[in-house]
Amino acid sequence: MPAFFIWCSDYIFKNLPGDTAMLVLFTDYGWHDPYVGQVKGLLAHHAPGVPVIDLLHAVPDFNAHAGAHLLHALSAPFPVGAVFICVVDPGVGGPREAVVVEADSRWFVGPDNGLLSIVTARAEKVRVWRIQWRPEGLSDTFHGRDLFAPVAARIAAGEFPHTWLSSKEVLNIQFDAAELPRILYIDHYGNAWTGIRGGLADPAATTIDLKGNILPWRKVFSDAAKGEAFWYVNSAGLIEIAANRASAAQLLGLAVGDVVRLSGSPDSRLH
Amino acid sequence: MPAFFIWCSDYIFKNLPGDTAMLVLFTDYGWHDPYVGQVKGLLAHHAPGVPVIDLLHAVPDFNAHAGAHLLHALSAPFPVGAVFICVVDPGVGGPREAVVVEADSRWFVGPDNGLLSIVTARAEKVRVWRIQWRPEGLSDTFHGRDLFAPVAARIAAGEFPHTWLSSKEVLNIQFDAAELPRILYIDHYGNAWTGIRGGLADPAATTIDLKGNILPWRKVFSDAAKGEAFWYVNSAGLIEIAANRASAAQLLGLAVGDVVRLSGSPDSRLH
Amino acid sequence: MPAFFIWCSDYIFKNLPGDTAMLVLFTDYGWHDPYVGQVKGLLAHHAPGVPVIDLLHAVPDFNAHAGAHLLHALSAPFPVGAVFICVVDPGVGGPREAVVVEADSRWFVGPDNGLLSIVTARAEKVRVWRIQWRPEGLSDTFHGRDLFAPVAARIAAGEFPHTWLSSKEVLNIQFDAAELPRILYIDHYGNAWTGIRGGLADPAATTIDLKGNILPWRKVFSDAAKGEAFWYVNSAGLIEIAANRASAAQLLGLAVGDVVRLSGSPDSRLH
Repeated sequence: MPAFFIWCSDYIFKNLPGDTAMLVLFTDYGWHDPYVGQVKGLLAHHAPGVPVIDLLHAVPDFNAHAGAHLLHALSAPFPVGAVFICVVDPGVGGPREAVVVEADSRWFVGPDNGLLSIVTARAEKVRVWRIQWRPEGLSDTFHGRDLFAPVAARIAAGEFPHTWLSSKEVLNIQFDAAELPRILYIDHYGNAWTGIRGGLADPAATTIDLKGNILPWRKVFSDAAKGEAFWYVNSAGLIEIAANRASAAQLLGLAVGDVVRLSGSPDSRLH
Repeated sequence: MPAFFIWCSDYIFKNLPGDTAMLVLFTDYGWHDPYVGQVKGLLAHHAPGVPVIDLLHAVPDFNAHAGAHLLHALSAPFPVGAVFICVVDPGVGGPREAVVVEADSRWFVGPDNGLLSIVTARAEKVRVWRIQWRPEGLSDTFHGRDLFAPVAARIAAGEFPHTWLSSKEVLNIQFDAAELPRILYIDHYGNAWTGIRGGLADPAATTIDLKGNILPWRKVFSDAAKGEAFWYVNSAGLIEIAANRASAAQLLGLAVGDVVRLSGSPDSRLH
Repeated sequence: MPAFFIWCSDYIFKNLPGDTAMLVLFTDYGWHDPYVGQVKGLLAHHAPGVPVIDLLHAVPDFNAHAGAHLLHALSAPFPVGAVFICVVDPGVGGPREAVVVEADSRWFVGPDNGLLSIVTARAEKVRVWRIQWRPEGLSDTFHGRDLFAPVAARIAAGEFPHTWLSSKEVLNIQFDAAELPRILYIDHYGNAWTGIRGGLADPAATTIDLKGNILPWRKVFSDAAKGEAFWYVNSAGLIEIAANRASAAQLLGLAVGDVVRLSGSPDSRLH
């Protein structure tokens, strides 16, 4: 990784010794519906005193591919010991397996549909388990509450549920672990996150081609003219398309899934 | 209730002994506005250490009838000892009373406008109190913060405020406790919840007539063709109208309040 | 302040002795995006056990002026010792300073761009510090997570970070501390908050002129005819434009920034 790139978030959890018990929710449940609250009621009961963090409930619906890259970027700064409940699960109730992944001392509980595969592929030390336990009365549609949450609660409470799990060599579904040159997420300001990590591109020499628009690099928003669209490396370490005091998504008509092309990048995979 | 139906949520809080102190918010305050945060500031102060769960802040505005059925379905899996702050309260500041209900060892604090009447009518053991306490400077419009939250905080903190309450025989407003054959809630996927409990319908023999559309039963989403609308029993135990990887609400033009008709149901009340 | 006006919120935190450790978030990050969750992950790590309250994440984007008046109104009822993380920060990464303000024993951490200036100007006892500490790898765009949150966490954890701060006489940017006669915020019911405190107007003698509409005072919603627009003093102590069981914003075509004129007010500044 080029020296010019320091991922800004790396430092933030390094100050305290030891593991930090913390449950982190990463789902496409939406914020408005009662799904998150039902999961939290269960967590408060089974892992009392463990803080529960809503990291994201707006993962693009049914899009495990975008979710997998977002999960990698957003989970990296969390402390060792954090337990992520990950739900983008259109195949719930079907044959897909449920798994636990330990990746560099963080824990991920969710479906084996690719969602956990980028954090798994990019970690140095990985262990994988199949969840073989099935609670009485398991619903067909809400494994986040009925299956993943109880497992995650026990891990966060320091009671690893060995008897509920069986070891597994690898995940069944493994996405390509290279960069994903597409729009992953559009935030409420209209900024568009891509699946390309900032460290792979030399900003000064790189433009982005997005639906025919050639976008230059700007270090910060105030370096761009008012309303100008540009790219920069965002606070999650990903290349982001933005506009100064304007919505890049509206300006350029962007949607999740749009293809992003880097030119001048030293990394030929992205040409 | 037919044997084929096990309400999936019943088991989830049965693992731990004893009561669980927990405050649960169920309102139409919306998620974006500062109302919920103001309530939580007060709860953090008056019931320190008690977890606060946002169950739902998107109860249809001013609709105590839909809210009453949603509250029953969503509160049922919560543990004994949980304290619900319930606010759908268009009559706030007027003559309606404020009440506390204990229903099968869960607590409900809110207006006596019908919102608490379904959990009350369907519980086996019920006690009802009028809140006669009025704090200094009570606002005319925000009893959720000024009246219900302090009462709920004291109950959750184990200090039942006897002197603030007076016993009451029954609620002033009691809705019909039978099923409500209407759309109660539409989630962000476009799935439409009804007020009909799943245990009352024999799936194999039942179709639903919704605005002229005849909808079959499917056990899970993946049993339906892509884009097909169907009904199933959702994870809260209610009959829900859904579509496989599509928005049923958009597909069928649904709105809260739309009438749902079951045909072939063994329960004649719903014909 | 006229005797008829008791600010309804003042009492609510007076019951307990001593300070209450509490972190309160007041931002324009939006509720849907991952920004709040990233901040909370850090807070859970650095201030374990301290409750974190989401007060508002829908401050109008980039609008420090509206934000400053909202912050004053919404923070006032919080207990002594509460620590507010305040982010409306279009100049992030530029030359604006980062500051800590102690105002009447509550703490405010954020940019020195006017956002903290109304709570500062209206407090009786104020101290101001510049944040001179810069963490390794500080991002250019996310000082809420990288700079304000660590500082706030240490204050809330009782470890005031003296070595990270240097004392300052006054804020660099100080907005006019008088009333702001504009729409500050529109809630999901369509009620429009103004920057005018209720105590300054005598309701019986005051109408509001808003885009040519003359609006009367009503004490509570149910005193207005169905669909009638009116003004009243809301539960945060501000004059609010509302309509009975209707959206005032829709009815009158309101937007944040619209000018509000009081007639008959005893306070000549507002004529």
